[in-house]
Order: sequence, then C-alpha cells, then structure tokens
Amino acid sequence: MTVAGVGEFGLIDRVTARLTHGGSCLLGPGDDGAVVAAPDRRVVASTDVLVEGRHFRRDWSGAADVGHRAAAANLADIAAMGATPTALLVALCLPADLDTAWAEGLADGLGAEAATVGASVVGGDMSASPTLTIAVTALGDLGGRAPVVRSGARPGDVVALAGRTGWAAAGLTVLSRGFRTPRLLVEAYRRPEVPYAAGPHAARLGATAMIDISDGLLADLGHVAKASGVGVDVHRDAFEVPRQMRDAAQALGVDPYSWILAGGDDHALAATFPRSAALPAEWRPIGRVVEGEGVTVDGAAYDGPAGWDHFR
Amino acid sequence: MTVAGVGEFGLIDRVTARLTHGGSCLLGPGDDGAVVAAPDRRVVASTDVLVEGRHFRRDWSGAADVGHRAAAANLADIAAMGATPTALLVALCLPADLDTAWAEGLADGLGAEAATVGASVVGGDMSASPTLTIAVTALGDLGGRAPVVRSGARPGDVVALAGRTGWAAAGLTVLSRGFRTPRLLVEAYRRPEVPYAAGPHAARLGATAMIDISDGLLADLGHVAKASGVGVDVHRDAFEVPRQMRDAAQALGVDPYSWILAGGDDHALAATFPRSAALPAEWRPIGRVVEGEGVTVDGAAYDGPAGWDHFR
Repeated sequence: MTVAGVGEFGLIDRVTARLTHGGSCLLGPGDDGAVVAAPDRRVVASTDVLVEGRHFRRDWSGAADVGHRAAAANLADIAAMGATPTALLVALCLPADLDTAWAEGLADGLGAEAATVGASVVGGDMSASPTLTIAVTALGDLGGRAPVVRSGARPGDVVALAGRTGWAAAGLTVLSRGFRTPRLLVEAYRRPEVPYAAGPHAARLGATAMIDISDGLLADLGHVAKASGVGVDVHRDAFEVPRQMRDAAQALGVDPYSWILAGGDDHALAATFPRSAALPAEWRPIGRVVEGEGVTVDGAAYDGPAGWDHFR
Repeated sequence: MTVAGVGEFGLIDRVTARLTHGGSCLLGPGDDGAVVAAPDRRVVASTDVLVEGRHFRRDWSGAADVGHRAAAANLADIAAMGATPTALLVALCLPADLDTAWAEGLADGLGAEAATVGASVVGGDMSASPTLTIAVTALGDLGGRAPVVRSGARPGDVVALAGRTGWAAAGLTVLSRGFRTPRLLVEAYRRPEVPYAAGPHAARLGATAMIDISDGLLADLGHVAKASGVGVDVHRDAFEVPRQMRDAAQALGVDPYSWILAGGDDHALAATFPRSAALPAEWRPIGRVVEGEGVTVDGAAYDGPAGWDHFR
C-alpha cells in the first residue's frame, strides 16, 4: 500500500499507532500541539534535516536505520548542550508512491532510538513531496545545569572525546564502493552509537565547551575554536586505528585517519575541560586548546580532506 | 548569488544575521541547540512542513510571504492549544541554484511574523534539496493554563470562531485562475491574519476544545467532533459573505460558502465553550455541539467540497 493510497490521515494513524511515549510526554500526537515537560523552566531545542540522496540512500539503509540516524543526529545535539533529551517532533515529506511500510519502519527507528534516552516522538507533520525528507526537532532539559556552549574553550583546556569517530565514514565509504561488508563498519554508519549520557556528565564535570561531531572531528573542533577565539591542537597518536578499520582502509586505498579526523556521522561528542578536571574513562583526552586560531594536528595544518558542506 | 555559491555556513551566517531575538530566546542560533524559556515547566511544541508546489508557489507568493505563512501555520497551532508562542526552529531545504536573496527574504518573513507575538527564530538547519521545503517547529508557553485539546467538546457547548475563513481560499482560487487581483483576497492568502491572542483568551474563558483552521472549517471541526465523540452543527447564517468575496465568487463561478466552510489556510481558531461563557466580540458564535457524530450545516450534511488531504 502506498502513502497516497492510505491518505494523509490514514498514514498519520498508522504511524502514531506505533509510537510509545516517554515520561516527559504530557500530551502526544493528535492535537494542534504536543505538551512536553520542561522541569528546568528552560528547554533546549535543535533541528536537523535529512534529505534522500544527500544524507541517506534507501538502498544503503533500511527505513528503521534512517529513523535511528535521524533521531541520533538530533538527540546528540541536545546531549552536546549538556541536556537530557525529552522529545522529538518529526516532519516527514514522502513521495506519494512510497510504501507505507517504509514510513512505519522509519517511525519504529525514530521511536527506538529516542527510547534509548527515555525520550519519545510526541508530534509531527506529513506531506507528499517528490523528495523524501525528514526534519526532526529534538527537545531537552538542562536539569538545572548551565548549557555547555561552543564559545567557552580557554587556552590550556584539555580537548576530550566521548564516543568514536571514523566508523560511520568508513561504513559509508564501504557502501559507496558497492560493498556491504565489513558489517561492523556498515552498521556503524547505519545506526550510530552515540554516547548520549556523556553530554550531561561533561556538564557536571565542568566542561567549558562541547559539540556534537557531525561534520567531522576537525571541522567541528574548528567551530569550537572559532566560537571561543582559540586554537585547538589534536594529538594524532590519541587515536589508534582499530583493526577492522585498518584492514578496510588498506583494501579500499584510503588513509584511515581521513575517516577518523574528517569523517562525520558518528555523533561522538567533543568537549574541552579545565586541566584540573578529573576525566572518567568515557572522556578520552585527544588534544589541547591553545592560543591562536584554527585546528592543527600535532601542531601542523592537516592536509587531508576537510569536513562536510551540505551545499557543495 | 546562489545558495551553492555561498555554501552552507555562508548562507547560515547571512540568514542568522537578519534575525532578531525575543525575550524567550536565552541562547540563539550558532550552537548545537537553542535554549528557550519555559516558565510554565511545560512546553507546547508543534511542527508543520511546507513543500513547494504543494503548499506554496514562488510565482504566487514572495519569499517573505512564504515566511509569514510558514510561521503563521505553526504559531497558530500553539495559540490553538491556549499557549503563547515563544520560539521557532526552521529546517530549510533549498535547491542549490536558488538565489540567496530568496532565503534571506524567507527569514525576514519568518522573523517578522514571529515578532508579532513576541517570538523569534532561535535555530534551524539547512540542506540542499531538489525540492524547496520549509519545516517549522514552534514552541510555546501555557502560562499556568491547562492546554485546550480537541477532545473536550460537550453537547450543548457553543461553537465559536476567532478570525476569518474563506479569504485565503478565495485568494488561492484567484491566483490559480491566473489573476493577481482583487489584492485583498490575494494578500489574505499570502499573509494570513491570525488571531493569535484569541487562543490564550479562549483558554481563560473556559474553552472546552479548540483547533486551528488549516484544513478547512468543516474538516477541522470534524477533527474536534471525532476527538470529542460528539457532533457539531454549523449555522450557515452566522457567516455573511463579504462584498469582495461575493464579487470574486460570482466572477469566478464559485460558491463563496465553499471558501468559507471548506477553505483552509486562514488559520482562524475555532473553539467550543460552555453555554454559560460570556464571549467577547473576538469569539463569534457559529454553531452548536450536539449529540451524535460528524459535522452538519443547519442540521444537514454539507454537499460542497471537503477539506484537504496532503497526499491526494
């Protein structure tokens, strides 16, 4: 059955029937607006849009995979502010001939990813469109903490990473060369493993700046450097190339550090901490904030590929 | 200059430079998430998406017009919950060859419409896409009031309308027939005049149910009837056909009541109130909640065109 066949309201009924609601959802889908708990009296909000052919391909990712990825991209933004995600709203633009099962699978993925942090899909909108497009807005609660912004890094701060980088980029390279394995890399691209809890933890540990790694580690640290008026130096030997990644890089003729340093889509979190902060294992030091501007690797400009620009 | 020419970050800089921020915006664009005041400890959230060719045409509406309309559609949803809008987040999907001036004009329209209620654009995302698409999420604050949902209408309640219906539909018919006048109708389509304040007012007046009229008066009252398990009877003589609309209807060979009763896009608000409520002039009685189901006009089924289904 196509989405045109069941119609707008039929599809909304089918999709919302699949959703379950977290404790922050005070009023879910079906009215003009949802009502979400905001105990902190401030709400953190972030929007990310995925466009077919640009951010995902239906032959590379299943519907539920795309749902996981769309949710993860937004939930990671909330975590990167030091907040706990509470809710997602989803605007779906679907080709009229799309099978409803795809939309239902997408909803399952969105809901399952949100559930990993106790959040849920509380509302949304649907329209037909020639271009399959998924715009997600995530909301979150700061729990009394100050938001951790990009502009607070100070020279001398430690740069640390929670989560992994390069895996999704490696998986994407594998898929773009026409392969389906190694599965570990492909799955890392399809469903990023985001260290959501590390965001609020970093806020409690006194992080001075934080960002979600979506454009690539160096590009995103560049945003922190620019916003903070500092430089960032990344230590290359802080990154060990995992065996599966090294083998794939060799087979595909790619420098694995281009995945690790410039590949996006893993949604790791990078943060800066005062030198005195006692970092738990979840936050691995990878560099230092320095006087100056821009991002260097071991003190020198990085000559690999840069990050991602969605219009180029 | 095209959006591809200035690139993603260049365009984000250009657009965000045009935005001003309302008092509820605690942290605006430029970080992983925005921070918005939520003094009520609950936040109302709603998402609506506009797709070029389906919800708007660039030859029928200017960029700022589309911004006004996109903002209005979402702000009206917040008002229809009885809440006061605080913030918008905007996901923009733009063809790479679009002129940046269009995106800037859109931002101006979004910001200007939000400013009419003291809200502002606090964040968003951009991507290239073959299909120009605008997904807006609006947030709002309930100010201690209970949300006014669709399911609270009770037999005997008065059905009342704030704002006007049929004007936008008339303007759209005018444009679709290749005309540009009467300007009053065309402008009503391009920039709906939404009675935002009537939403929170209705909550304070004891409204039992409320909805934003976006699919058409009868279709949206049908949503209230279904959610509440009641019928709604609309009194046709509660609607006087304005002269400009009557003249245009005659010239175009259209029944003006099909605009008034079934046309969407004016974003009027419809609410139900206990018979005892003392309604101010802003809330005009147009019918009655009855036992049963569905929507009738003067006790009989309406045989004009039905409301809008975005997949058909």
